[in-house]
Amino acid sequence: MAFFINEDFLLKSPAAKTLYHQYAAKMPIIDYHCHVSPADIASDKRYNSITDIWLGGDHYKWRLIRANGTPEEEITGAREKDPFLLFKNFAAALPKAIGNPVYHWTYLELKRYFGIEKILTPETAGEIYDECNRKLAEPGMSARGLIDKSNVKLICTTDDPTDDLRYHKQIAEDAACKVKVLPAFRPDKALNIEAGGFAEYMAKLSEASGVAVKDINTLCEALGKRVEFFNQTGCRASDHGLSGCCYEEASSDELDGIFQAALRGEKISPADADRYRTKVLLYLGECYAKHNWVMEIHFGCARNNSTKMFNRLGPDAGFDSMNGRGNVHKLPLFLDALEKNNALPRTVLFSLNPQDSEIIASIAGCFMADANCPGKIQLGVPWWFNDVKSGMEKQLLDFANSTLLGNFIGMLTDSRSFLSYTRHEYFRRILCNFLGRLVEDGEYPDDLHYLGKVAEDICYHNTARFFGFTL
Amino acid sequence: MAFFINEDFLLKSPAAKTLYHQYAAKMPIIDYHCHVSPADIASDKRYNSITDIWLGGDHYKWRLIRANGTPEEEITGAREKDPFLLFKNFAAALPKAIGNPVYHWTYLELKRYFGIEKILTPETAGEIYDECNRKLAEPGMSARGLIDKSNVKLICTTDDPTDDLRYHKQIAEDAACKVKVLPAFRPDKALNIEAGGFAEYMAKLSEASGVAVKDINTLCEALGKRVEFFNQTGCRASDHGLSGCCYEEASSDELDGIFQAALRGEKISPADADRYRTKVLLYLGECYAKHNWVMEIHFGCARNNSTKMFNRLGPDAGFDSMNGRGNVHKLPLFLDALEKNNALPRTVLFSLNPQDSEIIASIAGCFMADANCPGKIQLGVPWWFNDVKSGMEKQLLDFANSTLLGNFIGMLTDSRSFLSYTRHEYFRRILCNFLGRLVEDGEYPDDLHYLGKVAEDICYHNTARFFGFTL
Amino acid sequence: MAFFINEDFLLKSPAAKTLYHQYAAKMPIIDYHCHVSPADIASDKRYNSITDIWLGGDHYKWRLIRANGTPEEEITGAREKDPFLLFKNFAAALPKAIGNPVYHWTYLELKRYFGIEKILTPETAGEIYDECNRKLAEPGMSARGLIDKSNVKLICTTDDPTDDLRYHKQIAEDAACKVKVLPAFRPDKALNIEAGGFAEYMAKLSEASGVAVKDINTLCEALGKRVEFFNQTGCRASDHGLSGCCYEEASSDELDGIFQAALRGEKISPADADRYRTKVLLYLGECYAKHNWVMEIHFGCARNNSTKMFNRLGPDAGFDSMNGRGNVHKLPLFLDALEKNNALPRTVLFSLNPQDSEIIASIAGCFMADANCPGKIQLGVPWWFNDVKSGMEKQLLDFANSTLLGNFIGMLTDSRSFLSYTRHEYFRRILCNFLGRLVEDGEYPDDLHYLGKVAEDICYHNTARFFGFTL
Repeated sequence: MAFFINEDFLLKSPAAKTLYHQYAAKMPIIDYHCHVSPADIASDKRYNSITDIWLGGDHYKWRLIRANGTPEEEITGAREKDPFLLFKNFAAALPKAIGNPVYHWTYLELKRYFGIEKILTPETAGEIYDECNRKLAEPGMSARGLIDKSNVKLICTTDDPTDDLRYHKQIAEDAACKVKVLPAFRPDKALNIEAGGFAEYMAKLSEASGVAVKDINTLCEALGKRVEFFNQTGCRASDHGLSGCCYEEASSDELDGIFQAALRGEKISPADADRYRTKVLLYLGECYAKHNWVMEIHFGCARNNSTKMFNRLGPDAGFDSMNGRGNVHKLPLFLDALEKNNALPRTVLFSLNPQDSEIIASIAGCFMADANCPGKIQLGVPWWFNDVKSGMEKQLLDFANSTLLGNFIGMLTDSRSFLSYTRHEYFRRILCNFLGRLVEDGEYPDDLHYLGKVAEDICYHNTARFFGFTL
Repeated sequence: MAFFINEDFLLKSPAAKTLYHQYAAKMPIIDYHCHVSPADIASDKRYNSITDIWLGGDHYKWRLIRANGTPEEEITGAREKDPFLLFKNFAAALPKAIGNPVYHWTYLELKRYFGIEKILTPETAGEIYDECNRKLAEPGMSARGLIDKSNVKLICTTDDPTDDLRYHKQIAEDAACKVKVLPAFRPDKALNIEAGGFAEYMAKLSEASGVAVKDINTLCEALGKRVEFFNQTGCRASDHGLSGCCYEEASSDELDGIFQAALRGEKISPADADRYRTKVLLYLGECYAKHNWVMEIHFGCARNNSTKMFNRLGPDAGFDSMNGRGNVHKLPLFLDALEKNNALPRTVLFSLNPQDSEIIASIAGCFMADANCPGKIQLGVPWWFNDVKSGMEKQLLDFANSTLLGNFIGMLTDSRSFLSYTRHEYFRRILCNFLGRLVEDGEYPDDLHYLGKVAEDICYHNTARFFGFTL
Repeated sequence: MAFFINEDFLLKSPAAKTLYHQYAAKMPIIDYHCHVSPADIASDKRYNSITDIWLGGDHYKWRLIRANGTPEEEITGAREKDPFLLFKNFAAALPKAIGNPVYHWTYLELKRYFGIEKILTPETAGEIYDECNRKLAEPGMSARGLIDKSNVKLICTTDDPTDDLRYHKQIAEDAACKVKVLPAFRPDKALNIEAGGFAEYMAKLSEASGVAVKDINTLCEALGKRVEFFNQTGCRASDHGLSGCCYEEASSDELDGIFQAALRGEKISPADADRYRTKVLLYLGECYAKHNWVMEIHFGCARNNSTKMFNRLGPDAGFDSMNGRGNVHKLPLFLDALEKNNALPRTVLFSLNPQDSEIIASIAGCFMADANCPGKIQLGVPWWFNDVKSGMEKQLLDFANSTLLGNFIGMLTDSRSFLSYTRHEYFRRILCNFLGRLVEDGEYPDDLHYLGKVAEDICYHNTARFFGFTL
């Protein structure tokens, strides 16, 4: 029997197959938002084992293993102590992950990078583990090797404003490195005034910027300097992770009162934190507009829901969820405040709450006037928990229903792993299947040449144009 | 190759085809909610160009052109100055509107009214523009001609309480006019106490009603007089546009305090505005019940999101969105307050937030007792941003899941254009496809005669009965 | 023509048919949440007429008849006075219930229990009524007979903490009764501090528990005693019906102030009620964890929306709806508070708001660590208004997208009727169709033996394991 992931995986119509194989598949990848380590690219990191590269930092997979009743000692606790045990525990959970995106990602990655066409179960775990590890020892299986194999032309990492971007510079100067690696400006720590360590972070920002941060004005000045610095290093995009949208006006005095209280380590109320965030986000939005950057906003996440596990493992370990109240109704106020000052940058909006999708799409349509940029405000590709086949189909539908799908900027990985580029393949198959279905159902003219060009635009050209990447 | 909009457009099963062609297609249209101008019908307006009739007031199309990066001067700015430029800019955006409802509406309108079966692109724009304009010069392409061609028997316009309804009277007395044109009572300006111009509007209402409005009681009296007047002119329905549902109780003193403050031009808080609105809506609901009218409520819209563009173009120019917080949880309180007083009229509920759909359906089911009217409270057909194929399919599903689909009152255009009646065709095809699928999938007995009658009811008879139209 | 409910009803692919007929169909039923009367099982109740067993207490059907414009006198008012009139009114509404779950439930129940393969209309109502009543007079059509026919091995009823569980004991001691009937602990009256009758209920609880309830501590003690008592009678599960999720911290003094005010019959604010509920729910959660019970939480219901009909018919008569603001964002706070104290029991979460589904799934995934139980926190099967075919498909999709579908505990009836066990058949067909589609679409390997075992687990084994039922 043929392996279930075959040439026409997810492609259900002749039109879909044509669009994928003749157009989308051959396009290079621009991964405009991810969390891979620039240091690993700079050093062209190699991997000891499939556990190391595949299960060492992937909280998607950890969650599945946990949901199988496996004790934490045998998941994150086994990473170094017993890498095969962790791998086998994943193999035990996987067959039950029927319909889960990790199921498809797993087999796409095993096939594309390791040439494996076997079903992973506790019984086959040993054999597949050894085969993967043998393959990992071959040339071309380093960080850069995997990037090249994946036809990735450009990567945007996610970087703190205080970062010196030394690895980005090192990569840029390394003629042997074919991929372009740009930083993205992610000032979450400067915005999360209510979080622990805020005062310490301000000190760090003062040092990095050369501006002594003592009030809102100097904070803005310091952030502005870092935007300049990132810009000089080739940065084209910012990114923000917000638990919810915010727009709360406040006077300068109020704002400085809040800021001083935070520097003294006092507790900041959610409302005050939103006042502060509104002010700083508006300032930053202006900076981005001035530098012609893209502003990405990720909102609607409730982080570190399990105190018990946060105390044990820290953040980003698989204990986050959608935030049931992400305040999307405040989004238009924020965008309007920027646009009023002619300071609204090109923007990509991602909510972790799937119910926000149509609402965001309808809001985006209000801020595209006189943009001189097709699709200036974008409903982003589904994120995290929504980054599943049905989520992608829903986002394509919502995008298409509300505006010009032909101007969509398409997929990113949002991943920490160099094996995740197959998510672009996954997206492209879903995209082509979506377009193909419209043709098969008589809802769009049977012009595969035009739709093929649209698919290419969404996979590559629109992204390059929207961010202003030179390739 | 056959044109993609063929006889069986959107009809995917033999049952769907039978239901559409033998039953739904032949029914006349009752357009019970729209925004066409009664003056245009009275004068039997003719149109200079396809831009005039098709792009002059259509903010759906403007949004698509804006989303293509076209400057505003070449959209609304070109309406009079360079009508072909606006048309061509629409032609440039359209091919990218893959899966968008405007794509389908466009080709249905070009085909049904202009006989055109060509794909509109910048290359074909000139030819199609000329062809449409030639056709528009022919007899039968006036406002009334288009209504007749569309088999429309009755239209409800949307009218301010202060309107003298002169055009409705003129049409009623014009034996040459075959369509029945009734007003609908839309007192938004009387309810939006927090909006600019409220005091001026009260003066206007005083004049129209002959009641000097000086407090809540006289306001209610004045509105009641206008309900009487509309009723005499044949009105069978009211309509309300609310940003969100409201139900806030308040004492008479509080209410009068709020009202006096508004008359003095003071700023009214959102909570006070909701107190006021609750009071007046409850009063109006009683009036509607007394006159046996239908109450339509449209809620969940955030209007004029872009201050910059509002200052330039005013309202209704394509800068509105869904309101992410429309307070649907207050809806049962409002309906209960009316029902308690035996004053709950037949009601149609429309939310702009698609997430409210199942919630509204479940609420509607609580207020149907002792109604003496099948389907007394209705989940309305999808509105505005939701008026898309997938939105219609979802609403049919939600309606069917929650109550008796056989009592649904069906489609309206909600349009400002006399070319929009093909939206009824679009709806009917989707309806018949929905019903046909149930038969094909063995989820309903294969009784096409019965289902065909149901389709006819939904397209026409239920509407006539629900509103009490005499035809 | 074959009857529309045939062998392959809802099974659209060969894989789906294999999975249902060879695996799922033959599994016994564990109905772990329902509202049937233990007294009726103890007495092995028999029924006078199909109206009695089918329409006497079913508010789903009443709502449909009401939505058909039938006066209340001919619905609930006809139950005893004219049972055939009520039956005929249902027959008049049913054909219009196209796509409604009651349509399918009706024909499954008529076929499986009465052997009827006729379409119910006003014309056939008399004949079918007589046939059902003849059949009901036969042996095996008693409460226990219907349970046995349905292959039900275990039932959990829903019981108040003050219940003496005499019928459960009687059933357990009755060797002739083959089904296991366990109580479930549902302390809603102890939690609804703002509802009428709270002080009286506290007196009743004092009496039942032997603990004089005078403050929060004695209340907790009393509830704890009843949990002990239920546990001794074999109880394995609790259940909570909440209008919304709550998590509000308060001091002991505040809590006792609230409690004393309630005992005095004073009005309790919603915020105070939530403070109280948080405290008591946390206490109960600990009790459940200690006894290794499952905690079920049903939230998001707005009850008794129609005051007029509540005054006439009381609660549970078909006047409830989804609550548009169920505060799902507070859910992680509540689960975290329990987990921090190592007191988080296995939990099943049901929201009446379908928009909460993905959010709950994402939250559940945060609290599965070190659980020693596969699928410790479960997104429950769709409830009430969501218990429809499309709702089940959506829940399976959301479950599968977010975690291991293989660990799902499956279906319950939540019904008051002994004819509702066909809802398990309905679910199983939908489940097998869902799994079969994945195989047919190449999204899961074509291993029907493995998927068949998964189907069996979801239908039976997972449930038994999760609740710790011994069978």
